[in-house]
Amino acid sequence: MDIAILIYDRLTALDAIGPYEVLSRLPGANVVFLAAETGPVRTDNGMLTLQVEHTLKELTSPEVVLVPGGPGDVVARAGEPVLDWLRQADSTSTWTTSVCTGSLILAAAGLLEGKRATSHWLAMEELRRLGAEPVSERVVFDGKLVTAAGVSAGIDMALALAARIAGDSVAQAIQLGIEYDPQPPFDAGSPRTAPAEIVELVRSLSPRVQEQELAR
Amino acid sequence: MDIAILIYDRLTALDAIGPYEVLSRLPGANVVFLAAETGPVRTDNGMLTLQVEHTLKELTSPEVVLVPGGPGDVVARAGEPVLDWLRQADSTSTWTTSVCTGSLILAAAGLLEGKRATSHWLAMEELRRLGAEPVSERVVFDGKLVTAAGVSAGIDMALALAARIAGDSVAQAIQLGIEYDPQPPFDAGSPRTAPAEIVELVRSLSPRVQEQELAR
Repeated sequence: MDIAILIYDRLTALDAIGPYEVLSRLPGANVVFLAAETGPVRTDNGMLTLQVEHTLKELTSPEVVLVPGGPGDVVARAGEPVLDWLRQADSTSTWTTSVCTGSLILAAAGLLEGKRATSHWLAMEELRRLGAEPVSERVVFDGKLVTAAGVSAGIDMALALAARIAGDSVAQAIQLGIEYDPQPPFDAGSPRTAPAEIVELVRSLSPRVQEQELAR
Repeated sequence: MDIAILIYDRLTALDAIGPYEVLSRLPGANVVFLAAETGPVRTDNGMLTLQVEHTLKELTSPEVVLVPGGPGDVVARAGEPVLDWLRQADSTSTWTTSVCTGSLILAAAGLLEGKRATSHWLAMEELRRLGAEPVSERVVFDGKLVTAAGVSAGIDMALALAARIAGDSVAQAIQLGIEYDPQPPFDAGSPRTAPAEIVELVRSLSPRVQEQELAR
């Protein structure tokens, strides 16, 4: 089973690596990281370099497509070759998925038109402008389109997807293998539960919000 | 603040990338991935290649040291140059940390002698043989030595560490930024909560257990 994870300059690493760690453990899984061109790709903060060894042209019919997110104007950065590849891959995929603002790229490719979908909590209005119906849930299934909320939500999505693909027992074995028994030290992972001043702080620091305000 | 993440052949990617995604968001953080030699390093399943751009010699006094784990006999693979570097780095670090079987490498360097520590649930006896006092908790602080349980536990550890380093508000803002509001689809992430047959399945598939049985 080919699982294609899209890589592009300035992606957020955990968006890709969380689901990779889960999906790579599915029986028969072949996870392929691919990009428009091979070579080194730096993550959003410039501190980590992934080596991309496969181009989009090498894998046009993966069973699973996964699009991670990144900060700022990820949609514009994706570019037509990526959007074309996504449309082609989606036409034969079993599952087309995204994490965080990766859903904005799926939407820009026209794949979320009128569909229930999610994204990073700061990107929900942008998702609506791109034609999707934003849903504030951690993992959203709409047919074969599966979207996850911000960054870490990709782990939950991948486990839910693993259960659909290979059954609950396999998904549970993967969860136990990566010892995913989360115990965050604070209940601050959602704008619904975090202290109001923390929500405002994060909102004010977000480049995406700043860009939106500049664009008004 | 220099945060050194040790990279080596066949590491488990999420062990490193989970904490990186948290700690890189600390104000003033400079996360450096380093290895005995620069160049490409493949992760445990061979599906992902990280490009290492810094050697151990380039950073001998980081404030934070983080050692990820990997499958199989990671301790033997670490090698003397890595163990020497860990001893030197620990002598001046503010925090010396590990995720999953990374604690076996810390223990092999002699840094966990008599200390309370944790590891992947399948590696606790190995941790004891290497001189530590194994504790079945998700994140264990013993002075400046901080160890996390298997793979995904590095995210919880990094958030706890972020709070110690920069205060609760900063840690909460990071948690909200990566939308870490975990909702695993199953309660199977710990041998205490997973169905007994799943625990036995994962145990039977573990190369580490097989190696131990072969060594009897």
